[in-house]
Parts: sequence; structure tokens; C-alpha cells
Amino acid sequence: MESVRKVEISTSGKVIESPCGPIIHGLEDVLIKVTSISDIDGRKGILWYRGYRIDDLAKYSNFEETAYLVLYGKLPTRSELSEFSEKLASNRDLPEEIYSIIRVLAENKVHPMLVLESAVSALAGFDPKAGDLSKEALYDQAIRLTAVLPTIIAAHYRFSRGLGVIKPKKDLSHAANFLYMMFGSTPDEVSTRAIDLYLVLHIDHEVPASTFATHVAISTWTDLYSAIVAGIAALKGPLHGGANEAAMKQYLEIGSPSNARPYVEKLLAEGKRLMGVGHRVYKTYDPRARIYKDLVRELSEKKGNMTYYQIAEEVEKVVLEKLAPKNLYPNIDFWSGIAMYLLGIPYEYYTPIFAMSRVVGWSAHAIEYLNEHRLFRPRACYIGPHDVQYVPIDQRK
Amino acid sequence: MESVRKVEISTSGKVIESPCGPIIHGLEDVLIKVTSISDIDGRKGILWYRGYRIDDLAKYSNFEETAYLVLYGKLPTRSELSEFSEKLASNRDLPEEIYSIIRVLAENKVHPMLVLESAVSALAGFDPKAGDLSKEALYDQAIRLTAVLPTIIAAHYRFSRGLGVIKPKKDLSHAANFLYMMFGSTPDEVSTRAIDLYLVLHIDHEVPASTFATHVAISTWTDLYSAIVAGIAALKGPLHGGANEAAMKQYLEIGSPSNARPYVEKLLAEGKRLMGVGHRVYKTYDPRARIYKDLVRELSEKKGNMTYYQIAEEVEKVVLEKLAPKNLYPNIDFWSGIAMYLLGIPYEYYTPIFAMSRVVGWSAHAIEYLNEHRLFRPRACYIGPHDVQYVPIDQRK
Repeated sequence: MESVRKVEISTSGKVIESPCGPIIHGLEDVLIKVTSISDIDGRKGILWYRGYRIDDLAKYSNFEETAYLVLYGKLPTRSELSEFSEKLASNRDLPEEIYSIIRVLAENKVHPMLVLESAVSALAGFDPKAGDLSKEALYDQAIRLTAVLPTIIAAHYRFSRGLGVIKPKKDLSHAANFLYMMFGSTPDEVSTRAIDLYLVLHIDHEVPASTFATHVAISTWTDLYSAIVAGIAALKGPLHGGANEAAMKQYLEIGSPSNARPYVEKLLAEGKRLMGVGHRVYKTYDPRARIYKDLVRELSEKKGNMTYYQIAEEVEKVVLEKLAPKNLYPNIDFWSGIAMYLLGIPYEYYTPIFAMSRVVGWSAHAIEYLNEHRLFRPRACYIGPHDVQYVPIDQRK
Repeated sequence: MESVRKVEISTSGKVIESPCGPIIHGLEDVLIKVTSISDIDGRKGILWYRGYRIDDLAKYSNFEETAYLVLYGKLPTRSELSEFSEKLASNRDLPEEIYSIIRVLAENKVHPMLVLESAVSALAGFDPKAGDLSKEALYDQAIRLTAVLPTIIAAHYRFSRGLGVIKPKKDLSHAANFLYMMFGSTPDEVSTRAIDLYLVLHIDHEVPASTFATHVAISTWTDLYSAIVAGIAALKGPLHGGANEAAMKQYLEIGSPSNARPYVEKLLAEGKRLMGVGHRVYKTYDPRARIYKDLVRELSEKKGNMTYYQIAEEVEKVVLEKLAPKNLYPNIDFWSGIAMYLLGIPYEYYTPIFAMSRVVGWSAHAIEYLNEHRLFRPRACYIGPHDVQYVPIDQRK
């Protein structure tokens, strides 16, 4: 059991030599498990959930069905889907105590990502089965977590504007109900589809930092709520969530389609970064971006505002000319911020809406990891001194 | 940049072969960084903080001074220590809104670890510099986080029992103030020392899962509060925190010193686990356990209740006889639960008190990691099918 074995690991990342051995910085390319949830071909630009191409799911499926697929590993039959959707819908509401917490925080201008962390932790305390790691309990919790995130986000939006909270409606889809709780009216079809498709495209993406944080937490047998909170806490970082906001702000700065080319060329000449371009895994056009671009055009037409779509299209031309040879292409964030903007969603809710979708992937991965569970326990290489002499306080310099 | 390199990693853990290459389960022994915070010699049973032996710090130092040492890398001068202690003391109080959240949750019997997660996330929203990752801001946040954890825990204790909250007293030490906020009177010296020494001994322990979760979160440039929340979320798992509670419950079940030997022998014969024994890193007597044992004896004498100390001593004899040859020795949890019990602290606060101490190590590690920062991005090896055909819902089985 205790014998030391040498293992050969492949990485394209930076390797730091230390007195204890090599350190693969950021664990880039280091494998943590086998999975059957999602796969990415970064060279060809393909994303699969449970073996299904994202293109097919975007075309034929919706959030509820895709969430079922990612959680359970198969497409649902009609009765399975209606049972699942019904469970999601009936779990949308929150205990009054949680609304009161969201209210206090929203009125004090606490960022909705922090409120998600806070409300989800608190909510665990209202679930008598929160620490139960049986399959049945975990699936119930995953459904409940998926169901409540939109409610927490919309409640934050309403309270922070001094508006009354709008309770969820059971007869609306996940996406439509979210917009209804935000703005108070049943949304049109394209707007609903803009949220629904965004959610479908973000459900899972293998193991970025937030999903990894969820793994590390669940590996201690913490409750699923807390593991999801660890994911939210990591997603909050600007290196992870937040890129679509930055891209949208860039389009606003550009202001008009004719200003796009000079703006981007100046930016690149100055060695500055263009937002929504390039990806740690995709070395070609992000398949999600390709799909979402069409939706953004449709939504722009519906909303009667083509400006930002056209600006982005002009920016895209320069990107394909000048950056594509360096494997830098538009990613999903390049397009998704425009949809959020046209839907009237304030910036600070962009990353929470990302969490609203990714909670499904986090949950599926946590459940999967518990099957072949091992507590995460890496090491750090100590390079400081040993046995330093303790000097009484008055003799210190 | 993009070339793949093979790196040889040593591990004593389980290695799973996958189509993508070997997986070191739980990343056991995998190095994530160099550190100068703490070091452990598991064979000799030595723990160092910043090069100082834990034995010296236990004998000569206290929580405030050791926290300074771990955060700043050197022992403070008298004026540095008084400034640091003053900062800690003046940051103890919470905004009224946070007390109100703790109250709502405590009255609804939400576990104090979940309340810590919830309150710490919420508190970030009251710190205008929460997302600031400059050294100065990070140290201020680390001090604030260290200062408030006892207040959150004590407020939970008071509210959950229908008692009024007791506001922190600035003129008491960190340990004494905690007991004061819990029980309402200035504690005696041995009780204060029991908390203080416990805190000194738990401040850091290299990178167990909770500290690792903090690293993963901060690697996305999330705020320090959220990174600490990820740590708390992981510590909550029974495989990480919670062992001293389990050990104490075992002593209560044993009931009397004379029953210790037959109880343990029966347990071992049945192949069951003795709590507070053995450690993933220490293969000899845990140095923290050796130190804390003396304190537990002293506290037991002071409280006029030697029963549990004597039970533990009897259990220890059997452990040293039967388990030591297998490198299984008493660890810190073997002794620390008795102190908590004698201080009148209910079980559910044992792990929160662990967090009260470890928050210093989590913060020091997060600050250290940001120096040589790299986003954590491991991989999972996909072993499912590809390009499964999407079948319309009514044709599914």
C-alpha cells in the first residue's frame, strides 16, 4: 500500500521543477477521473453531452430534456420527461426565510453571485436529507438546486430594485419562468429560446475550475449543496465567469459597426486583449458560439436592434482574418452577452445565469465522482527553513 | 507553447489506467505548488509553521502571534503584534444584517457549518474591497475573516438556544473572547488556554482537501471570502472535519476507564474503526496530539472530571500495543474532543472551531498561490460513446 510508484503524465502546461519533483502548474491536462458526462474535441470544435452532439441538442432539445440527459445519462421517454419537468417546476419556490435573506442582502447591494453562495448554503439547512449521499437523495437535491437557482437570482433582481418578488409559475418552462420572475410578464418565444438555448449550451464543459472545486468539496463527503457552493465560489472569479459581460462592454464602447474594424485593429496593435476570443480548449470556432450566433441574430431582429449583432459581426471578420491563424476564434461569450443585453438583463446577472445552467453539470459530476470516490489530497513542496529558533518577543528585530 | 511534455510524478496512492493515460486517484502526493507556510514530517512526527516547530509555538506562543507568523512569514515584534491583535479585536463585530441572517438560520436549526458558509459569503458583500486581490487588501480580508468566524459561531450558538447574542469584547484575547461570546462570562485561564492551544495547533496543515478547495477557487481570481467559503464547504465533509466528535462519542459509549480495553479489543476484533487513530500523513504519534494531551489532563483536573481523560489513556494503551506496529497512532482528534466536551461546547460546533483556526492557513495559502498563480484546469478522460443519434421522444424506449 505504501510503496511509491512513478507515473508518467502528459501535459502541454508549464512544469515547475521543485526539490520534491516536478509541479504541473494549474494541473493542466492532469487527469482526475474517467467520465461519461461530456467530451470536447478542441481541434475540431465539437462538444458532446453523454455522446450527443451539442448541435443536435441545440436544434431538437431544450433545457429540461438536456438536463435530464446530463444527469441520468440517457434521453428521457415522454413520461420520464414530464415527471422530471414537473419535479423541477414544483421545487422552484423557496422557504420564506431564504427570501428574507435574499432581501436583506439585495437591499445592501450584495453581488448576486455572493447571494447565490449564501442562499444555497442556507437552503441546505432546510433540506433534512442534505447530507444524504445515496443516489436517490443526490438526484432529488440536484433537481432542487437546479430548480431554485433562477428563483434566487430573480428574487435578488426584484429586491435590489425595490420591487416585489414574483413567485414562480409552475406552468411555464424553466427558461420562460425565469424571465417571468425577473420581469413580471410571460416572455415572447424568441426571448424564452434565448435563455433556454443559453442554458442548454452551458450545462457542462468537462472540468474547468468551478467543476473541479465541486469535485474537491464532494470528495470529503460534504453535502451536495456545499459542493455546489464551492463551484459557485470558483465560477465567480473573473478568469472563469464574466467574459460575456466584458465582450458586451467592448461592443458598447465600439458603438457602431463602422467603428469595429479600426477599434479592433488599434487594440491588437497595442497588444491588448479582445474579449470573447480564444479558449483554453477550443483551438477553432467554439461550437456553442456558432450555434448561439444565429439565435442572437434572430433575437436582435425581434427586438428591433441590430447594432450589437452587426458590431460583433464586424469584429468577427477581423478576428477571422488576424487571429484565426493563431488558433484564436470567437467563443460562446463573444455572442452570449448581446443576448443578455437585449433581454434587458443587467451585467451582474450574466455569471449567475451561467451558474443556473452549470449547476446541472456540477451535480452530475459530483454524483459521478462519488461512484469511484477518493478524497483529494495533493501535496505542496516545502522550500522554507526548518527548526528556526523561537526568539522572545523583545529580542526580535 | 502547445507542445506536450511527459512528466514523471511519484505517488504512493492508487493509479487508475485510462485510455487517456494514468489517473492518480485523489491526486495523492501530486505536487500543486512550492510553499513556505507549513511542513510535515509524517515519519518523525514533526510539524513546522514557517520553519518553527509546533512544539515551540505551543509552549511559547499564542493564537494571535502564531496567526501573524503564518500570514506574514515571521514572528512579530511587540509593536507589530499589538497592531495585529488590535486589528483582529476591532474587526470582531458583524453588520446587523449578518446577525439577522444568522438568527433566521439558527432559529431554523441550520447547521453552523452551513451558516458559516452563508454568513461569510454574505459578509463579502459588506466589504467594498472584497474583490481586490492586492496584497494589502488580501491581508485586511484575512484579518477580518479570522476575526469574525468566532462571532458567527457564537451568535449561532446563542440564537439557536433562544438566547440573546453577546457582542465581542475588544479587551479579551481571541480565545477568551470566543468563550465569552458563547457563555457570557470571562473564562478561566485553563479554558482559555484549551481554545487558544487548539487554535494554534490547527492553523495550518499543508494542503488537505479544504485548503486545496481554497486554492482552486482563488485560482479563478474570485474574492478571498468566496475562496474561504469553498474551504469551509470542503471541511464540512465527514472525511475531513468531524473526527474529534466521533472520538468523543466513542469515549462516552465506553463510559468508564475499566471498560476501555474490552471495548477497543472487541471493536478491533470485529474489524471496526477506532476514531481519532491513524492519519494520512503521520505514521507515528501526531505531534499535535502529544502536545494537546497534556492540556486535556490539566483541563480535566480543573473541571474536576478525569473520566474521559482516563478512558482515552486506557484506549491509548491498547492503540500503542496493537495498532502502533501498523503505524496507527493517536492523532489530534483523539484528544481534542474531550476538551471541547469539558468546555461545554455542543458537538455541532467542533468542526466550526476547526474552521476558526484553519481560516488563517487557508488565507495564507490563497495569498501565497496568487504570487505564482495559474488557473486550475485538470482534465477528465471521456470513456462514453460519441455521436449518438438523437431520437425523437416518442420513438424512445
